[in-house]
Amino acid sequence: MSLLSSPPLVEAAASTAYDPIRLKVPMSLWDLPTPALTIDLEAMESNLLKMKTFYQGKKAKLRPHTKTHKCPIIAKRQIEDGAVGVCAAKVSEAEVMVEAGIGNVLITSPVVTKEKMERVVALAKKSPGVAIVVDQEKNVRDYDDAARAAGVKLPVLIDLNVGTDRTGIAIGKPALDLAEVIRKSSSLTFGGLQAYAGHLMHLRGFEYRKQASEATMGRAVEFKHALEKAGFEVPVLTGGGTGTYNIDCDIDGITDVQVGSYLFMDVNYRNVGGKDGPLYEDFRPSLLVLTTAISQPAKGRITVDAGVKAFATDQEPPDPLSLPGVSYRFAGDEHGILEFRDPRGPAEVKLGDKVLMIASHCDPTVNLYDQYYPFRNERVEEIWPIAGRGKSQ
Amino acid sequence: MSLLSSPPLVEAAASTAYDPIRLKVPMSLWDLPTPALTIDLEAMESNLLKMKTFYQGKKAKLRPHTKTHKCPIIAKRQIEDGAVGVCAAKVSEAEVMVEAGIGNVLITSPVVTKEKMERVVALAKKSPGVAIVVDQEKNVRDYDDAARAAGVKLPVLIDLNVGTDRTGIAIGKPALDLAEVIRKSSSLTFGGLQAYAGHLMHLRGFEYRKQASEATMGRAVEFKHALEKAGFEVPVLTGGGTGTYNIDCDIDGITDVQVGSYLFMDVNYRNVGGKDGPLYEDFRPSLLVLTTAISQPAKGRITVDAGVKAFATDQEPPDPLSLPGVSYRFAGDEHGILEFRDPRGPAEVKLGDKVLMIASHCDPTVNLYDQYYPFRNERVEEIWPIAGRGKSQ
Repeated sequence: MSLLSSPPLVEAAASTAYDPIRLKVPMSLWDLPTPALTIDLEAMESNLLKMKTFYQGKKAKLRPHTKTHKCPIIAKRQIEDGAVGVCAAKVSEAEVMVEAGIGNVLITSPVVTKEKMERVVALAKKSPGVAIVVDQEKNVRDYDDAARAAGVKLPVLIDLNVGTDRTGIAIGKPALDLAEVIRKSSSLTFGGLQAYAGHLMHLRGFEYRKQASEATMGRAVEFKHALEKAGFEVPVLTGGGTGTYNIDCDIDGITDVQVGSYLFMDVNYRNVGGKDGPLYEDFRPSLLVLTTAISQPAKGRITVDAGVKAFATDQEPPDPLSLPGVSYRFAGDEHGILEFRDPRGPAEVKLGDKVLMIASHCDPTVNLYDQYYPFRNERVEEIWPIAGRGKSQ
Repeated sequence: MSLLSSPPLVEAAASTAYDPIRLKVPMSLWDLPTPALTIDLEAMESNLLKMKTFYQGKKAKLRPHTKTHKCPIIAKRQIEDGAVGVCAAKVSEAEVMVEAGIGNVLITSPVVTKEKMERVVALAKKSPGVAIVVDQEKNVRDYDDAARAAGVKLPVLIDLNVGTDRTGIAIGKPALDLAEVIRKSSSLTFGGLQAYAGHLMHLRGFEYRKQASEATMGRAVEFKHALEKAGFEVPVLTGGGTGTYNIDCDIDGITDVQVGSYLFMDVNYRNVGGKDGPLYEDFRPSLLVLTTAISQPAKGRITVDAGVKAFATDQEPPDPLSLPGVSYRFAGDEHGILEFRDPRGPAEVKLGDKVLMIASHCDPTVNLYDQYYPFRNERVEEIWPIAGRGKSQ
């Protein structure tokens, strides 16, 4: 049975599905059933502290994105660290956060069906800090109807297309007209602007990324000023992410930054380049998957029990932790193969060995697991439910 | 709230976590909260029937792989259709099937840690049809110890490396010696051979695939005869899959075929070529993801609410169903973009429209969802829990 379903291992049922589950007897990291999604607590806490400290005294605040961790336990820590609220990508993800007691949840993607808009409005009734984004006039009118029917005032931000060409309305007259529609609505309040430049987060080279973000976010700030001239109060201009956390915070007019990956880091972010060097090392990799070497049919490699169902495959593959000369490649849904590039190297993995891997793309990797095993000094004392796992609706 | 957590929609709690959940009022397919994983029941049932009919009168039987669907409801149908048992990729997946009452579960991947071997032995105690594969001597001895301690006789198959170089022992003396170790053990029984040629399943062109499979599986059959000459009874030689279901069944000596994807098909399998033409159309795509068009920031394309967290990304992208001239590309974790290749074409998708997509690689796509919404005539009457979702341990 899995750890979660083995009552003798667990001290007491958690009070809700969101709380940490305390193990009766702490476990060694190396005894977890693999593949296991673990968090190096020291590294994650160092990332949290670094971000918190960096933002002290900045005008911009943090609004971390829960789509990365999908875990109310972590969202609560981010709020304690001074975040103005959190982001959720989808309605069902926001529902988890609200149920778990997290306030000020911004749903960062447009929602257009009646069923989902009604869920949003119900959520806003429960938690007045819930806010949404829109990029079309019809959507504003539909939300207004839903909010009026439910008797709530719903804060609405305009989602600006700042170059992703994925969601958002064009800056200028289209967005200004949309703001007017919101202003004239009966049950919506104009909450400000979202300018998420996702396409800039992984640009390689800090200076290049800085120029691109300043230009892109600069246009959003300009538009904010235009709205203010037109008589709008614009309480929020939210955007940015881990790739621009130390750029967007200094752009005057941006109120908060939607960081996510800084918590965990991953192989992809390391390679985008940091302020201080060619590797982005501002934060430490803390999301690690424990695997077991289960078979060795050929020399120079060994097979581990973690494949496409254990790691995100949309970006670079995972990377063995502290095993120079060893690389991972996917070998189907259930397996991966560690290849020893330099047979003379010090790295050696034997049958039955446990191997920690730095996660590939962190957000979709987290989305494959039901729980984190946080560890410190190689000891696991709690299980953290990933309550938002699979909540893509 | 999600459908599963909305009691009013559900007629009665399912008797177990594995049974269908009946909706109080049937829903239209088009009203499901998106992204939703749906099954076109007519197509899936046609696939089941075609495979069942094809195998009637064949010497080889079917041993479907549950790693594809992870759903005991479907496994039961496959058993009713005459399968000799099912496969599970991992111990936790096998636990789900056994708990749900499925007999004869073969775990197709080696398991080497003490904790997992103990779980396997406990499972075999519950369900005597549980069998495992091994590819190393130490593993055989460890299993023997675990089985003896638990007082069970555990059937053990030898996993042959027939070219995947992923798991399995070399054919010939190494495998023969391993069979001797099993024979001499006190608590294991020699269950036969597994020869899974995963690397052949997607070879393009039926004739090419046929020659490759006949050569590869022929070596396994030869080895089976060698074992028999050495005095072993070899009750099972299992292998093959959807790509070779109509090849391996006619190779004398193969006892059963591990088909999986035939149930659902996917974009990748279509392109490998069938017996009757360049497209592999023996089975119909039945695994469809319902999405919603939520934003249109640029002409000639539209954004849907399903991205990397809604579709497997390891092989070809999903394909819009019945929308010629429209293609899908990933646009991050939460979104995809439909591109209209031919603006003069008949296909048009408008904001708010629901779009059905043929799933990308079926197994890891299923692994992203908690439930199927099976439909017939665009009506959904039940929800099927994907009880094995995330069970990669």
